Amino acid sequence: MADNPVLVEVLRGEHVESRHRGAFVAMDGDGTTILSAGDLERPVFPRSAIKLIQALPLVESGAADHYELTDSELALSGASHSGEPGHVRTAAAMLSKAELTKNDLECGSHWPFDTGASRHLFCEGEEPNALHNNCSGKHAGFLCTCRQQGWPTGGYVGYDHPMQEAIRDAMTALTGAAHGPDNMAIDGCAIPTYAIALTAMAKGMAAMASGKGLGKERAAAANRLMSAAMAEPWHVAGSKRACTLMMQAGAGRLYIKTGAEGVYCGILPELGIGFALKCEDGTTRASEAMAAALVAKLLPDGDPLAQRLSAMARTPILTRKGDVVGEIRPTAALA
Amino acid sequence: MADNPVLVEVLRGEHVESRHRGAFVAMDGDGTTILSAGDLERPVFPRSAIKLIQALPLVESGAADHYELTDSELALSGASHSGEPGHVRTAAAMLSKAELTKNDLECGSHWPFDTGASRHLFCEGEEPNALHNNCSGKHAGFLCTCRQQGWPTGGYVGYDHPMQEAIRDAMTALTGAAHGPDNMAIDGCAIPTYAIALTAMAKGMAAMASGKGLGKERAAAANRLMSAAMAEPWHVAGSKRACTLMMQAGAGRLYIKTGAEGVYCGILPELGIGFALKCEDGTTRASEAMAAALVAKLLPDGDPLAQRLSAMARTPILTRKGDVVGEIRPTAALA
Repeated sequence: MADNPVLVEVLRGEHVESRHRGAFVAMDGDGTTILSAGDLERPVFPRSAIKLIQALPLVESGAADHYELTDSELALSGASHSGEPGHVRTAAAMLSKAELTKNDLECGSHWPFDTGASRHLFCEGEEPNALHNNCSGKHAGFLCTCRQQGWPTGGYVGYDHPMQEAIRDAMTALTGAAHGPDNMAIDGCAIPTYAIALTAMAKGMAAMASGKGLGKERAAAANRLMSAAMAEPWHVAGSKRACTLMMQAGAGRLYIKTGAEGVYCGILPELGIGFALKCEDGTTRASEAMAAALVAKLLPDGDPLAQRLSAMARTPILTRKGDVVGEIRPTAALA
Repeated sequence: MADNPVLVEVLRGEHVESRHRGAFVAMDGDGTTILSAGDLERPVFPRSAIKLIQALPLVESGAADHYELTDSELALSGASHSGEPGHVRTAAAMLSKAELTKNDLECGSHWPFDTGASRHLFCEGEEPNALHNNCSGKHAGFLCTCRQQGWPTGGYVGYDHPMQEAIRDAMTALTGAAHGPDNMAIDGCAIPTYAIALTAMAKGMAAMASGKGLGKERAAAANRLMSAAMAEPWHVAGSKRACTLMMQAGAGRLYIKTGAEGVYCGILPELGIGFALKCEDGTTRASEAMAAALVAKLLPDGDPLAQRLSAMARTPILTRKGDVVGEIRPTAALA
């Protein structure tokens, strides 16, 4: 296996303290590589970074129309949200439209990513439930699809359930990569995840952007989901989260989504470009810097959005008293 | 620069999802390398991993005797504690013995590492203060030294203050590495930290273990600090923390201490071995696995402690429902 280059370095004073390696690729709708670095063929679990594609069956089936899902609800169906009260309410509303409850969710529960939300829950003597799971919107979308399609709602996370078959079919069609038992493992929210090449992920994102080769209905569904996420970026992640901040800065010019273990996928709709990246060690601080720097590099020189994202790619390191003593920054390979 | 090998891998199902590189070295008291891998000459900030050496002036000055510091207090003077109530009480008691208060601490404040301690503080409507800082015990030790030596207590974190000079002298003597403006940066708690080779760190730890070349008084101070930490491991880190758990398992046969950005230093006193390691990307989950695996590898075959640490080097990855779907484990280079 080829070594991945160092894409992000952590400085303390004038010295490099830590290093993060990674790989990335950006492609257009014709499958032409625009920019890349590192080992692109090593299989990578996209995890939550391809939630937009996992939400296609919700729209294509007609379930999104049947339940009159709003942009916020569609955005949440492709979210890794922070478990803030607004996220929890939106997930509950989606389930309610399908006459289901949090007890139908099979994602398990965890404390909200948002520290404030967790602390408030704790102070009220409560425990988190499945609605607080960062994937509850995605699972609510699955359940809406199952209900509208007449599939069993129990066991919808299983490999052989029609819900997971539909996701697998969409992923295979958009990425061109095989999805089956050989490259499958189980994601944190209990559904299957499949290790594929970064090039396949970028190809899938470029297809979502351009609609090329998808057919009219799928292309429309892709566009609707992407537009909803860009219109409601807080519902895709949450307060102070990188995906939300980058899409807010993008103001309709950037779709971007992270996945666990340092993955990012995204779309520049104006340019018809899809991209994917993986930080080799799975660290969030590094994948965030890589994502912001990569988007800045893909945009035209002098674009104000590129300047904003270049600034977001650099994070000062502070002492506990607040003095700046270092920086997280992209290396020359990305800057 | 030579590439560091992958020492820890993160599996999901049968597939490697993320990889952590690193370097390590173990040395005996004569400076002979016992075991090593990776780039050993690349300078590394030890951060909190050499707090045991930073605490030498507290004992050598006579301040520890003057204020009748207990083993818990000496352990806390070399700790990165979790800010649990017992840690906060011990740091306050040390300051009180020197007729000082938390207002004399110059380390800044942050929410306790311990989630429960943070949540309880929040529910009581309180903010963290400098006693909750993971370094408050080290700083309380500095202040005891300053008070007993008649040095100014204000400004003790400064490069030119006699406290930092004494630490620099001890670090230089034990590690053989230069400590000065050229390799200096500022640590999170506002004191200087100096980038040195892992071999120098391991040499310093081996010197703490064997006392060789230190002179009688310094050797006794080193032994007293190491013994206090091993006797009171909860005061070195806290509940469920890796350093505490590993020293509890070691029961007097292992001293070990982590530092920020994936560093570990440690001692096997019976074998007279000191060791140091750095995870290249600075990730805690990986440096913990590296540390446990390295200690297991240094111990004789069939030693029950080696078996316990080998088990601690592997951590299952669970879904939010609690099913095992992966594992963090050392690679063949360390297993």
